[in-house]
Amino acid sequence: MLSTINFGQSYSAKEYKELAVESRIRLFNLQKECMEQKIPVIIYVDGVSGTGKGSFLNLLSEWCDAKHLQTYSFWFLTDEEKLRPEAWRYWTRIPQKGEMAVFIGGVYDEALRKMAGGKISELEFNDIMYERVEFERTLTQSGYIIIKLWFHLTADEHKKRMKERKKNKSEGFSSYDEKSEENYENLTSAVEKMLPLTDKDFAPWYVIDAYDEKYRNIKAISAVSSCMENAIRRKKAFETNMPVIEDETDMQAGISILDQVDLSAKVSKEDYKKQLDVLQNEIRSLTYKAYKKGISSTLLFEGFDASGKGGSIRRLVQAIDARITKVIPISAPSSEELSYHYLWRFWRHVPRAGFVTIYDRSWYGRVLVERVEGFAKRWEWKRAYSEINAFENELINKKNILLKFWLQISLDEQLRRFKEREEIEWKRHKITEEDWRNRSKAEAYKIAANEMFLRTNTVHAPWIIVSAEDKYHARLEVLKAYKKALEDKLK
Amino acid sequence: MLSTINFGQSYSAKEYKELAVESRIRLFNLQKECMEQKIPVIIYVDGVSGTGKGSFLNLLSEWCDAKHLQTYSFWFLTDEEKLRPEAWRYWTRIPQKGEMAVFIGGVYDEALRKMAGGKISELEFNDIMYERVEFERTLTQSGYIIIKLWFHLTADEHKKRMKERKKNKSEGFSSYDEKSEENYENLTSAVEKMLPLTDKDFAPWYVIDAYDEKYRNIKAISAVSSCMENAIRRKKAFETNMPVIEDETDMQAGISILDQVDLSAKVSKEDYKKQLDVLQNEIRSLTYKAYKKGISSTLLFEGFDASGKGGSIRRLVQAIDARITKVIPISAPSSEELSYHYLWRFWRHVPRAGFVTIYDRSWYGRVLVERVEGFAKRWEWKRAYSEINAFENELINKKNILLKFWLQISLDEQLRRFKEREEIEWKRHKITEEDWRNRSKAEAYKIAANEMFLRTNTVHAPWIIVSAEDKYHARLEVLKAYKKALEDKLK
Repeated sequence: MLSTINFGQSYSAKEYKELAVESRIRLFNLQKECMEQKIPVIIYVDGVSGTGKGSFLNLLSEWCDAKHLQTYSFWFLTDEEKLRPEAWRYWTRIPQKGEMAVFIGGVYDEALRKMAGGKISELEFNDIMYERVEFERTLTQSGYIIIKLWFHLTADEHKKRMKERKKNKSEGFSSYDEKSEENYENLTSAVEKMLPLTDKDFAPWYVIDAYDEKYRNIKAISAVSSCMENAIRRKKAFETNMPVIEDETDMQAGISILDQVDLSAKVSKEDYKKQLDVLQNEIRSLTYKAYKKGISSTLLFEGFDASGKGGSIRRLVQAIDARITKVIPISAPSSEELSYHYLWRFWRHVPRAGFVTIYDRSWYGRVLVERVEGFAKRWEWKRAYSEINAFENELINKKNILLKFWLQISLDEQLRRFKEREEIEWKRHKITEEDWRNRSKAEAYKIAANEMFLRTNTVHAPWIIVSAEDKYHARLEVLKAYKKALEDKLK
Repeated sequence: MLSTINFGQSYSAKEYKELAVESRIRLFNLQKECMEQKIPVIIYVDGVSGTGKGSFLNLLSEWCDAKHLQTYSFWFLTDEEKLRPEAWRYWTRIPQKGEMAVFIGGVYDEALRKMAGGKISELEFNDIMYERVEFERTLTQSGYIIIKLWFHLTADEHKKRMKERKKNKSEGFSSYDEKSEENYENLTSAVEKMLPLTDKDFAPWYVIDAYDEKYRNIKAISAVSSCMENAIRRKKAFETNMPVIEDETDMQAGISILDQVDLSAKVSKEDYKKQLDVLQNEIRSLTYKAYKKGISSTLLFEGFDASGKGGSIRRLVQAIDARITKVIPISAPSSEELSYHYLWRFWRHVPRAGFVTIYDRSWYGRVLVERVEGFAKRWEWKRAYSEINAFENELINKKNILLKFWLQISLDEQLRRFKEREEIEWKRHKITEEDWRNRSKAEAYKIAANEMFLRTNTVHAPWIIVSAEDKYHARLEVLKAYKKALEDKLK
């Protein structure tokens, strides 16, 4: 996911000037309030090299009351640190109540670089991740706020900046950078492993688009401020025994994955038919092989109404032996289902080894419709990301396939399809009042979807965002992605 | 710890008769109330073979309204289960809201047996433990109650029962038992690994003395009932936005480790001097070797006032080169220390590789004095067990030594020493009003200590309970234990 996002948003000087004044005052006031409320704040500033972590730190020191902001750089372990458990350097640097501390590099960097360099196994890496999460849980449970920022760039931009630095022999170019320089792919892939394991409701990650310094500053400061603001609200609510009202502002809004989808791809009917036939035959034979090897597949489809989920699913079903396939449409839960934990109804349908289960909508309803419509409480959908990551990890069971498709269409195309459905008699049942209502909340759904992608994309259960403006293109993309996943597993 | 506890407590038939009536009514009423409050309850009944899990299950079915109690036996994976992720069989058996489910074998059994049989590595075992804890966290966060019972016996008693079963070709003797039969040591050692990893404030373990059926029944039912009662209180408090008042009854009281300590051991002054000299010399040389290998030692001392902690520590200090030793006395935290997380002040003193740090009292104050005196809130000391386990795991850092000494004396001997201190002028500073006050709370401290042993004893950081009625004996025991730990590490 991180390697396909187009990190490249920016603000003009004029926009920045206005936003900066506002952001600066907000942050400064929040720092004062955290001091009064004795709330300690820890900010991790981490990311790929060349994203300006140092310059962001300077900004923080300038915008905050620097007397109450301590900064610590965690790069390679110092000699003193090497002589002690790694957590020692983090624990001894936590701030006093009411103070702020910035951890440059955060507490994951050492493990990330080791993983990127192939120096530890995935199991060892996971073990460190669990330890760090416990560190954060321990602190946040007793009132600490931990804000985790990850600054990112595209591979090309990163490469460009590294070259420039080298040429200019820039001061920022340390031996640390030199070592990480060639490692963008590996590091990003380690980060993709880290995010789902360590993104928790009590200490979530904020991925920041660091292409433009101004944009990066505003978005990062906004994440920091929102977290501080919500912490103050929680503390006050706790002390007065009143319900918490947290700010609903989307703190991930800095990155919109959906806005980046290129919707122009098209396939002619003729091409479509030709390719469809070939792909379906290939998938038929691959799913038999997977069946024999006991590799299950779970494919789920999400996307706005009328994005063509049903059509894509039908082309899949045509391809696979019906004896090993099941399609599960997910709508509002039954009263029986409501009497269990919300994940129970998905566990019911977990395929047997070798079987294929296709979900038309899925457990992601928790962080989409239930979030947007208020069916789930804020704390419920907030923690659902990590519950879902754990659930999917079990589904995959170290060998199975799990593909998550998001079919993306423009609002214009959706409108066209809605109207078409109303006009054609045998399509009329597919359009309801609810579809029109959902459409009016498109912006809220988009925000929810964007946050969902960032928090639940995992190496073994990736989100595949398909341009579905053209139905033929979308259907072929789905089949191709599944074919590739099967081939990879059967290698 | 589990292999040294003398599981062997019992009730007379008369005692049982009275307690049973009371327990049964309490449980039945709580079940009704959980139904009304729509609280789902899961009970794991697990333990070594021969502890009567089956007969306890019958009791539960008899004492509860069996229509609302489902039971599931998780032994070897069935064919259907083998075809799916292991968690599937647990998830699909969770109870509906307001219902009860009993999981015979619980969700750890499969992994425990694998670990005991050497079929998975410690890292793989840990990974499964983390997954299961997430399963429990997910459920309890949305209102499920999980009560984890582990039935245990001594090795001798276990052996005896297995023999009898075999001889009688008892119905209960399945192929499962046969496989586990010879494995008491390995299984117990796997359980010792499991407990600290999976004992969480939201789903704690209750180790039950299963020697006597009657005693087992009452203690297990009492743990179940207390958990249900507290859950109902929490739910009501949450709904009315009022603070929770949980029952303070010690649910671990079924096992008193301190009452089992044999205090009769004695050493003559002459023997003491001879042995002391030898041991101190050995430790001097061993600590040099450990220093060179970068193996640190942390030794901590807890125990009632006047149990001889200071004296034992002095004999250790005499033995080790002062350049690599540090003694940290822990009393009430300074105002600076109070301004941090409570673990911060211990991280400050973490020894460098190869060094030795000795704590006179320690972080266990959180679950001893702070619990008994009410300095820590209930939820703070409840979750401290798992925070401390995580902290110690980092301290050990896969290679260091961590020994936790509890010096045990009788209340009579304590009184004798208090009086002696008051009489001898140069000992008078050692006795204060506070010591007398603590003495009056001896019972509460004992309960806290017993729970502490069960929840924080780990394979790599064991509790060593030393009979300290005789000072000479205690000092030698401490030196011997440290010597052995050093030798083991330097092998």
